[in-house]
Amino acid sequence: MDYQSHPQPLNQLATKHQQLPKVLIIRPPTVFKSVETEFSQKFHLLKAWESPLPLDQFLAAHAHDVRAMLNSGVTPVNPDVLRHLPSLRCIVTSSAGIDRIDLPECRRRGIVVANAGAVFSEDVADTAVALLIDVLRRVVAADRYVRGGNWLVKGDYPLGSKLGGKRVGIVGLGSIGMEVAKRLEAFGCTISYHSRKAKPSVSFPFYSNVCELATNCDILILCCALNDQTHHMINKEVLLALGKEGVIVNIARGAVIDEKELVRFLVQGDIAGAGLDVFENEPEVPRELFPLDNVVLSPHRAVFTEESIRDAVDLMLANLEAFFSNKPLLSPVENE
Amino acid sequence: MDYQSHPQPLNQLATKHQQLPKVLIIRPPTVFKSVETEFSQKFHLLKAWESPLPLDQFLAAHAHDVRAMLNSGVTPVNPDVLRHLPSLRCIVTSSAGIDRIDLPECRRRGIVVANAGAVFSEDVADTAVALLIDVLRRVVAADRYVRGGNWLVKGDYPLGSKLGGKRVGIVGLGSIGMEVAKRLEAFGCTISYHSRKAKPSVSFPFYSNVCELATNCDILILCCALNDQTHHMINKEVLLALGKEGVIVNIARGAVIDEKELVRFLVQGDIAGAGLDVFENEPEVPRELFPLDNVVLSPHRAVFTEESIRDAVDLMLANLEAFFSNKPLLSPVENE
Repeated sequence: MDYQSHPQPLNQLATKHQQLPKVLIIRPPTVFKSVETEFSQKFHLLKAWESPLPLDQFLAAHAHDVRAMLNSGVTPVNPDVLRHLPSLRCIVTSSAGIDRIDLPECRRRGIVVANAGAVFSEDVADTAVALLIDVLRRVVAADRYVRGGNWLVKGDYPLGSKLGGKRVGIVGLGSIGMEVAKRLEAFGCTISYHSRKAKPSVSFPFYSNVCELATNCDILILCCALNDQTHHMINKEVLLALGKEGVIVNIARGAVIDEKELVRFLVQGDIAGAGLDVFENEPEVPRELFPLDNVVLSPHRAVFTEESIRDAVDLMLANLEAFFSNKPLLSPVENE
Repeated sequence: MDYQSHPQPLNQLATKHQQLPKVLIIRPPTVFKSVETEFSQKFHLLKAWESPLPLDQFLAAHAHDVRAMLNSGVTPVNPDVLRHLPSLRCIVTSSAGIDRIDLPECRRRGIVVANAGAVFSEDVADTAVALLIDVLRRVVAADRYVRGGNWLVKGDYPLGSKLGGKRVGIVGLGSIGMEVAKRLEAFGCTISYHSRKAKPSVSFPFYSNVCELATNCDILILCCALNDQTHHMINKEVLLALGKEGVIVNIARGAVIDEKELVRFLVQGDIAGAGLDVFENEPEVPRELFPLDNVVLSPHRAVFTEESIRDAVDLMLANLEAFFSNKPLLSPVENE
């Protein structure tokens, strides 16, 4: 066979691809590269990041036939973007957090949003527990101690603090918070929580005030969404209420904490430690934290395992297919 | 009052102390220093490590009136020591592990042994879970990545592996193994175990052969005692059976694993990772492990929290008091 033997099927393939439903991607979600083929078999992908055009021109060029968009958790979808896309009716995001999407503007424009639902909840909860024990028992610092050859030279490493019996306050009792609670109950912790409103189906004590929760807990675990109400919710007052023996774990979003205050409290020893997967200006991490042994720093990886990424990809595909078949989304974001 | 005002009470105190029951200590258990006063108020402590005499002479000097001994988990109590102490009838050790005490010789001499019972079980289980998640999710290596400034420069850290759904094999299902199982069930793991014999009260699948357990598991967690049967039980054959994707956590004793083989498997990538709290020649740790990101190294601190040490001290005091009151020990070691 010579190199011209398949012109027609290739043309047919190209034509078929043109006929697939169009999906706009401004910037690809993490690990998109490894699953791009799966998406491009089902959708005609409009890849803004590969175009030489500036974003607004790229959007303008496709303005009238883009009905769906695939979004990473970190790419902003603000009114500036949305006003270029009058036909857009669906945004599917790879993330559980939707703080980069302007939900009121989406509602106004009749755009539905699907997020990663609960596919990451178990992995995030696992990370929260690991960060917590790592802080209480100084696992990361002790590993440094061993690798530095100190065990041999300086002897026993200091004592840690027991997890069992600790009073844990969960801030945001959604699917992640519930998974955290389930795990920590098995360790003998007592759970209470703060949330927008009390959950009738849950028997854990509810605090309408996060400061009161902090006063009555040894540990705070942040599992809430970032929005106007939760931005800098963990401020100086809450950290003071948590107190010198208190530990904080953040697997939510960096800006839920007033990071400058947190750094000050940690450096001055005014709280006992922190396990942080998220930061206000990622990937920047306050350098004042680097020398501290009572802090565990994780590069926003709480959600990322091979297994959960696979589940998230399947869910994104299924949400897009549902949208184009006029069926209900599998993991719609409430937006009322 | 002048400086001579209390000669009699002081003498009386000294006499009273001489009359307290004698307890021999060859080397003090960890953190003994901070609680020595509590012991010396109730017992006349014979502190071999403070004496200028060589150990055998010190023992000989007290041979006939030492009935009880307080021991650290690392000080050997072998026939050489025991033959100097014909009146010894009770050994109370601060550790859960009793591999340094010659149990057959104790039995022959009518010496009862009390260990730390289950006071450390929860803390050890907590550490086992933390080491496991840390290995699967690379928490310690990711912390190094952040502190090294790499997140900013090199971008996203690689994916980890999910804990939920993993098949966990527990080697030694005593009180520690049961606490580990309880925790990991909350994470969605399936549990099976190997033990000297099947436990009728337990529904987890039992494997009489550790190699078969390894073949059917993704993760092995070692929670067994070190003795002739378990020494180097985790050998090349078991590691091969665990396989390239397998992870091992050891919070038992270093010598349960053939450490040279383990190092070889880890360096060559023939198992996926290891979380190690114990080593064959502590405090020496094989230096080949230091550059590995799939290994978490902990300086034998799985048991040590302020809370568990307090419980252990209370139990040691109670065991000694029970012995001297001719009451049953609170945490006797089975020795038949």
